[in-house]
Amino acid sequence: MPQKVRIALDAMGGDFGASVVIPGAAIALGRRPDTEFLLFGDSAKIAPQLDQHPRLKAVSRVIHTDVAVSNDDKPSQALRRGRKTSSMWLAIEAVKKGEADVAVSAGNTGALVAMARFCLRTLDGIDRPALAAIWPTTRGESVVLDLGATIGGDAHHLVALSVMGSALASVLFGKPKPTVGLLNIGVEEMKGHEEIREAAEQLRAMNLPQLDYIGFVEGDGIGKGAADVVVTEGFSGNIALKAAEGTARQVTEFLRGAIQASLMARIGYLFARGAFAALRARLDPRRSNGSVVLGLKGIVVKSHGGTDAEGFASAVRVGYEMARCDLLTKINQTLNRDGGASASEPVAQEAVS
Amino acid sequence: MPQKVRIALDAMGGDFGASVVIPGAAIALGRRPDTEFLLFGDSAKIAPQLDQHPRLKAVSRVIHTDVAVSNDDKPSQALRRGRKTSSMWLAIEAVKKGEADVAVSAGNTGALVAMARFCLRTLDGIDRPALAAIWPTTRGESVVLDLGATIGGDAHHLVALSVMGSALASVLFGKPKPTVGLLNIGVEEMKGHEEIREAAEQLRAMNLPQLDYIGFVEGDGIGKGAADVVVTEGFSGNIALKAAEGTARQVTEFLRGAIQASLMARIGYLFARGAFAALRARLDPRRSNGSVVLGLKGIVVKSHGGTDAEGFASAVRVGYEMARCDLLTKINQTLNRDGGASASEPVAQEAVS
Repeated sequence: MPQKVRIALDAMGGDFGASVVIPGAAIALGRRPDTEFLLFGDSAKIAPQLDQHPRLKAVSRVIHTDVAVSNDDKPSQALRRGRKTSSMWLAIEAVKKGEADVAVSAGNTGALVAMARFCLRTLDGIDRPALAAIWPTTRGESVVLDLGATIGGDAHHLVALSVMGSALASVLFGKPKPTVGLLNIGVEEMKGHEEIREAAEQLRAMNLPQLDYIGFVEGDGIGKGAADVVVTEGFSGNIALKAAEGTARQVTEFLRGAIQASLMARIGYLFARGAFAALRARLDPRRSNGSVVLGLKGIVVKSHGGTDAEGFASAVRVGYEMARCDLLTKINQTLNRDGGASASEPVAQEAVS
Repeated sequence: MPQKVRIALDAMGGDFGASVVIPGAAIALGRRPDTEFLLFGDSAKIAPQLDQHPRLKAVSRVIHTDVAVSNDDKPSQALRRGRKTSSMWLAIEAVKKGEADVAVSAGNTGALVAMARFCLRTLDGIDRPALAAIWPTTRGESVVLDLGATIGGDAHHLVALSVMGSALASVLFGKPKPTVGLLNIGVEEMKGHEEIREAAEQLRAMNLPQLDYIGFVEGDGIGKGAADVVVTEGFSGNIALKAAEGTARQVTEFLRGAIQASLMARIGYLFARGAFAALRARLDPRRSNGSVVLGLKGIVVKSHGGTDAEGFASAVRVGYEMARCDLLTKINQTLNRDGGASASEPVAQEAVS
């Protein structure tokens, strides 16, 4: 890797395009000055934003394209319309060509995963990509994957997810041997799908040096930080993530309603507003914005589409860390070291989420 | 149904057995005096509890048994050890014999579902039971099922769950035509498992008079109250429930930590403690305690094993309402009216959760 981290941005991605991506990149640059940017998108929309951030402008190159993937494009549509031409594709392709170390997009997830897979191809021993995110827990943070890149999967797929997730966790949390749990509906061996029990047996039998398999984790174990890495196929991972996000919003809404309902409570709020600000910061979805598409010959980071500049800066930061720590090499090393995932067979449905 | 609702209680179920079940029944009786109880379990443990609640004692009959299903018994063990003899079995059997209108147990879920299924048998047109619970939402309450009685299931199973769930919702919420959504990872038609898309097509095509199918609901839609009834197979239902429960606990822990961290915040808490009490009450898991085992020729209610007397009283209350509103007849009527579930084929794994 060159001295600076080179980040390719899909400047048209997300609900707000360049008006969030460019200010977000500027914030990220302020925090990590050893960064360069390739900005893909409509130069007429990028230029005025860039003019407001001269420091960013000085380390950026704009590559114009008229084509942008829309939030409503299905993966197949996006590939048909935007392959080789869209800002999303070009950002990913910059990684493939070695012109960038990582690509970041706030564009729609299904299209991004499909394009990344099509352009970058899967790593040897990996059949399908996965989406991994950082989940705030009462003990700190955990990596959870797959959050919806692929639906379903056999035991080999779950083992591959465990290997990739532990590589990500060791980079993010600086732990040489992160704990790994398989998401399941009970802690007894007899419960859950056949493939989960099989994956558990394989992980135990393989006894991999780079991860510490600790057993099954239930849905409420994720937030307790029961494992550094929680592994599941994409359908239940997505359901778990969204149920948790929804509940966090719901509880804070209940709290707001309860406080607004009485004068005494509103007075109390004034005294306690530092505490509420701390709570808000802790629950701020922008802080943990930035999911990583794993399993491909290149790193792609997905930002929430509806985030603001601060949130997009978090996603850029995730991309920066992945590149700086050479996540890809780490994953490749661990995959080759164990080879356990190489027997994986493509039995599950295609990625569409 | 006789004038009084007759409730069979597994007095040995749960973490605390008779010391929670009997006081819980006493609370429930205070709120619904038109109730009679059959208490199954160790009379030496029941009697001293009952002596403290003379009003309950006056409307209860104790049926002694030495055998109790333990929290650790796997379903097969429980059936082997406790069939025809355990307090759990006898309570369920009282429903089968027509001696009780509903059975309530805080015993372990897997054993309870297995015993209920074995003893009561499934309704015509239903292959496998489901576990349904009331989920607090920002708009009120929704019914969510299946929470783990059965893993997996085809489109017919999901349609059957929709029919049973809507019957439960119409009884609970007094809505003649509740809205029903299928839990999925995206709102576009193309997403999710094949069987979910198929179930969506069937529900649209059937256009049932007793429910209003509104489409897919994502994980964060449950807490928003996107539908009166949210339907999914038991694995993802259980994951969603536990992820949400875990997150609610996590957010309240964050809040407590933030308030304890500063003197000003603790002062503020004193002013706002009414609001915090309201929040606690709203999030109180005891309030929504009591899942219903649906799909059998008799109603069985499952209470959390770790709940207290107040929580157990909620579960008894759920049982009371189910019996009073004649849920079973309602489900049977709707199943026979549409017959849509009768083609259901047993393709999925057995219940073990």
